[in-house]
Amino acid sequence: MRILGIDPGVATVGFGLIEADSCVQRVVQYGTITTPPTLPLAARLVQIESDLTQLLAQFRPDAVAIEELFFNKNITTGIAVAHGRGVLICTAEKAGVPLFEYTPSQVKQAVAGYGKAEKRQVMEMTRRLLKLGTIPRPDDAADALAIALCHARSTTSLLSRSAGTVRQTV
Amino acid sequence: MRILGIDPGVATVGFGLIEADSCVQRVVQYGTITTPPTLPLAARLVQIESDLTQLLAQFRPDAVAIEELFFNKNITTGIAVAHGRGVLICTAEKAGVPLFEYTPSQVKQAVAGYGKAEKRQVMEMTRRLLKLGTIPRPDDAADALAIALCHARSTTSLLSRSAGTVRQTV
Repeated sequence: MRILGIDPGVATVGFGLIEADSCVQRVVQYGTITTPPTLPLAARLVQIESDLTQLLAQFRPDAVAIEELFFNKNITTGIAVAHGRGVLICTAEKAGVPLFEYTPSQVKQAVAGYGKAEKRQVMEMTRRLLKLGTIPRPDDAADALAIALCHARSTTSLLSRSAGTVRQTV
Repeated sequence: MRILGIDPGVATVGFGLIEADSCVQRVVQYGTITTPPTLPLAARLVQIESDLTQLLAQFRPDAVAIEELFFNKNITTGIAVAHGRGVLICTAEKAGVPLFEYTPSQVKQAVAGYGKAEKRQVMEMTRRLLKLGTIPRPDDAADALAIALCHARSTTSLLSRSAGTVRQTV
């Protein structure tokens, strides 16, 4: 199963593509979609749609996993990221790729075994699970790989599946 | 000039199309795009894109005016509406229609002459300015007409133009 994890945003969208079965997960590709702050929001959103469409066509994932938004501190950032997330979700749906959403604590639980794990712990576990020499850069791409891993471990592990609360939005 | 005002959302998107010159503004069409709560978010967003694309093709507005989001109270609602707003903005940009954003207080100022006007005052002024017998229903459509009026009065009135802070995002 090929899973594309997405860390949503407008300035930077992280993506991480993994190939996963019940035993092993390996990286296929990771990176970011970035949009210049000099562009108006509308043009940035169109670029995000266009770039994600291209990624989906190129890599043909079996599933897209995307993080849910929780913003208790900075609502302005939350609103901005939600604009990008709406476009990303809409684009995956149009491409016909099944979409799954996970909360940050579900990602932490699935990858680091603890729903309140520190960001660094999650990144280090992402590195280990994917057998990488170093933690992927930038952080947005590492986060996206963790989200992809979360979906892989939620759907391919019997243990996780029985305990999971996967919410499929397609 | 033909202006499409949009009151963003996911469950209900208000739209209001007006024809405006420096003296007169008249209604062409108004209504809502509604998406059923039984549908997953991704499918609702695709429907919003599809319906707005159809409206833009049918009515060929010269400009789209959309309200900016300010959510101090309910961040969950704000995040949800921002998903829809991102898709709406992206769709207008793809259709090549110039997009303008206004704050709620700019809309109130332009329509009711007072940036802290009550919602009912704005609706009543919208009715009067558009020479309608009753306030348009539902509220989302009336709000969208007010936003369209705000753009009309900001761009066709010398007084408003000199005082305006129109932010064009295309």
